[in-house]
Amino acid sequence: MKVIENQVVEQTVAGIEGLDQGMVEAVSAKVDQLTKPLGALGKLEKMVIRLGGIQRTDSPSIDKRAVTVMCGDHGVVDEGVSAFPVELTALMMGNFSREGAAINVLSRYTGTDVHVIDVGSKLDELPPGIVDAKVKAGTDNMAKGPAMSREEALKAIEVGIRKAQELAAKGYKSISLGDMGIGNTTPSAAIIAVISGKTVSEITGIGTGITEEKRMEKARIIKKAIQVNGLDGDWRSSYDAVDVLARVGGLELAALAGICIGGAASRLAVVVDGVIAGASALIAYEMNNTVGEYLFASHQSVEPAHVASLEYMGLEAPLRLDMRLGEGTGAVLLYPLLEASLKVYNEMATFADLGL
Amino acid sequence: MKVIENQVVEQTVAGIEGLDQGMVEAVSAKVDQLTKPLGALGKLEKMVIRLGGIQRTDSPSIDKRAVTVMCGDHGVVDEGVSAFPVELTALMMGNFSREGAAINVLSRYTGTDVHVIDVGSKLDELPPGIVDAKVKAGTDNMAKGPAMSREEALKAIEVGIRKAQELAAKGYKSISLGDMGIGNTTPSAAIIAVISGKTVSEITGIGTGITEEKRMEKARIIKKAIQVNGLDGDWRSSYDAVDVLARVGGLELAALAGICIGGAASRLAVVVDGVIAGASALIAYEMNNTVGEYLFASHQSVEPAHVASLEYMGLEAPLRLDMRLGEGTGAVLLYPLLEASLKVYNEMATFADLGL
Repeated sequence: MKVIENQVVEQTVAGIEGLDQGMVEAVSAKVDQLTKPLGALGKLEKMVIRLGGIQRTDSPSIDKRAVTVMCGDHGVVDEGVSAFPVELTALMMGNFSREGAAINVLSRYTGTDVHVIDVGSKLDELPPGIVDAKVKAGTDNMAKGPAMSREEALKAIEVGIRKAQELAAKGYKSISLGDMGIGNTTPSAAIIAVISGKTVSEITGIGTGITEEKRMEKARIIKKAIQVNGLDGDWRSSYDAVDVLARVGGLELAALAGICIGGAASRLAVVVDGVIAGASALIAYEMNNTVGEYLFASHQSVEPAHVASLEYMGLEAPLRLDMRLGEGTGAVLLYPLLEASLKVYNEMATFADLGL
Repeated sequence: MKVIENQVVEQTVAGIEGLDQGMVEAVSAKVDQLTKPLGALGKLEKMVIRLGGIQRTDSPSIDKRAVTVMCGDHGVVDEGVSAFPVELTALMMGNFSREGAAINVLSRYTGTDVHVIDVGSKLDELPPGIVDAKVKAGTDNMAKGPAMSREEALKAIEVGIRKAQELAAKGYKSISLGDMGIGNTTPSAAIIAVISGKTVSEITGIGTGITEEKRMEKARIIKKAIQVNGLDGDWRSSYDAVDVLARVGGLELAALAGICIGGAASRLAVVVDGVIAGASALIAYEMNNTVGEYLFASHQSVEPAHVASLEYMGLEAPLRLDMRLGEGTGAVLLYPLLEASLKVYNEMATFADLGL
């Protein structure tokens, strides 16, 4: 294993502990007394049991929750991989600032605080309310060389870790992974292909809406980026997950990997929705598998790479809404279900109440 | 087609109109102006568009919603098809009355009013708050003959129609199908097998939790009931959906079919969750296909018959929680998603707002 040359990242990755198994059993035992057939509430039961293990209590809660929308631009857009121009990243950051985007609306509805953080956009002057944590103004074109340096990737991971620590200190119990970055399904598919071992052709999707011809071209560019960066074949003998992220990843993906790592270390429930969140989580998972115990899959994207990332981490997404929007919109929709799981746990009658 | 010998049922089935296509187009056009790639909100968009067509307005809402938990007992329980004793139907009705069951908790959380209606239980004295609309105290054993008469089936459908009309008159916009009846996955699988044409072996599941050996025995009993009642082979030449319901159905299933029919006729969104709701909806759909335009699938049950019923009606369920509880618990969990679809429709910025 390679040395992680960033102390915050290195120590946080090493400090992640597994769930409290005593609490997992205590919550399970209480669930089994409720007036329903054993296991009949399915994933609703599993969610509350896991929350108990994560929070080390038999009275878990997710009252305070946030979505961190990490923003970044992508040099690979020069290759024509996206249906939208790179300028849209900045326009959407303005939209977040004015609270008019889908993630603002869905977060308001689900009682989630929105934190928008610029970790790698090309925008110089940030609109009000957007946090400046820029590591680099967009990645370089990964089809021609590394998207960024290893040092930059670690710095962007650190941004996410510090944000997760800050939110944990403020009493947040859960963070949803959100993203904004025109072109970012391309690095996401590259990361997922490299780590999961699936072929690029089978996992490349249409992103926010390109034609089949453009999809094949996108797959060609992803393959090229993987080759140019030496990540085909037995890459694990020379490189680690941070290298994969630096070479074919993105700055917002790095920061989201940092949220997973920092969230797990701070015992928060981290909610993962689509392909960008999936790729980011996969980097964190590769750095320390225990991260997986803190991840909750929410919406299953129509992007084939997303399914591959969830399978690799052993996660199953309960929502199938055919969404392909990003921003964390699929993630925050898990909160009503997590709340529902807490409500049944806290409010249902037991068989003893029925006199049985 | 056979004559329906019940005037309320006959007239309501005939009075169902399709969606308002002008409003479907008006809502679609507004959705396409929101700041997101075309179609990127997937089923969230489709839900609000359909609500507009159902309610004949470009400002749809689902502020007022109910779940109707129809209760009934099943003579076929004598054959040992359930993991639970028949007495549990009555005990659970007491639990509903004291608001301690899963459906009470989830309805409270999702802002849904619970209406529990006894249409066919064996319980004599009803606990407070349960509506008495009993047609018959449990069905007869369908493995030995018809579960009920055609007249009783129509009377139980009428109970559902009248309840839907009553709720529509009170301003409700949506009804979720809920059920309580020990043994009712057995008639549900029978109905779905007969109508969809799938084989009994492939669609018989474990209900609330029986062993594989008991599952095979259950399939054998379902096959026997279908044969005894003359519903194998080309049944459509002699019988209609009401006959199927009377012969291998249940009283609570009939009432839920009535909710679908009355709901569609009164322009309500009807939410369908698991295998019992699916079988009931299938009866209504078979009586008038236009019913399907008013149905919203919510949770996809682990019961294989449920998937078959949804496929037959062209519905897709967005929730996958591995639940197998009934009561309408999977249905009411759609409301946060329906609300979310209304929120994005009403609150998101348009591309014009962004200056594009």
